[in-house]
Amino acid sequence: MDFMIRAATPEDCKDISRMIMELAVYENMPDQVKISHEVLEQDGFCKNPFFHCLVAEVAEQYRTTEGYTVIGYALFFYTYSTWKGRSVYMEDLYVMPEFRGEFPGKGVGTALMSKVAQVGKEQQCVRLQFSVLNWNTPSLDFYKAKGAQDLTDSEGWHVLRFDGEALDKLAQMAPKN
Amino acid sequence: MDFMIRAATPEDCKDISRMIMELAVYENMPDQVKISHEVLEQDGFCKNPFFHCLVAEVAEQYRTTEGYTVIGYALFFYTYSTWKGRSVYMEDLYVMPEFRGEFPGKGVGTALMSKVAQVGKEQQCVRLQFSVLNWNTPSLDFYKAKGAQDLTDSEGWHVLRFDGEALDKLAQMAPKN
Repeated sequence: MDFMIRAATPEDCKDISRMIMELAVYENMPDQVKISHEVLEQDGFCKNPFFHCLVAEVAEQYRTTEGYTVIGYALFFYTYSTWKGRSVYMEDLYVMPEFRGEFPGKGVGTALMSKVAQVGKEQQCVRLQFSVLNWNTPSLDFYKAKGAQDLTDSEGWHVLRFDGEALDKLAQMAPKN
Repeated sequence: MDFMIRAATPEDCKDISRMIMELAVYENMPDQVKISHEVLEQDGFCKNPFFHCLVAEVAEQYRTTEGYTVIGYALFFYTYSTWKGRSVYMEDLYVMPEFRGEFPGKGVGTALMSKVAQVGKEQQCVRLQFSVLNWNTPSLDFYKAKGAQDLTDSEGWHVLRFDGEALDKLAQMAPKN
């Protein structure tokens, strides 16, 4: 293989930060990104980290014109199902466009995702979950071809969110005891 | 108020386990529950717990005919947005039917949820997320009235999952390095 998958280190946070932005641009929401590489370093490499991350790194000979060798990442954390127990949630899976499909050794995305699955199973996780935008057909096809179920389609699960003022207001309603 | 919200202890796991089943019955999926109170004790009260839990407890005078005083729970954990940072995810929010609406002091569900929001904000979380079944109109209305956005409707996010054989197969594809 002409690439390797390894656990991210604090030194990778600049690369991860760059690719988070590239992914947000692809998802048409670049304005949404508020996270700096300093915050990633702090939140991912503290005593009880908020996330874990794997990176894909290519050999020197495949270095991009901009000089990058870290060309993909998978960011994940552990969650919990009250029906089934320990689960792993993959927040992001990203491979730079020029390293998809045609790249020798192929399958960088699959390698990253399958490594998340393996790490999760080592922690006795019985599920790997993630979210995909409904217009992102290439990604949906990629995941479904590997056996993923779309729970929004099959069971009707919708994701809801409080943030900003709605979250502040909600928190203020908490009982004092 | 005739109830209090407090952090769950290992001794609450039998009550939580009972209510997890009650919630699954309401969601028409009781066969899905595979978690025992022993597993909850182990996963929620170890050194790096997989979840956190709040319970609602009523005064003795409101004890149910079956003898229960723990009558609601909210189970949550910390997640991470690569756009916005620390987030909290509420896996379950449940209040026994006889303690909804008419119960003196009212608002047990709101008290539990707002306490999750408060605890999350203390941990610098900028989002509270959760999932709701699309046919569960009473719950959807309850959350939306408090300011929650439905991200599946507004942005098109779908939840995908690998489990069982699909997860095993995926994990087996992980590169050896």
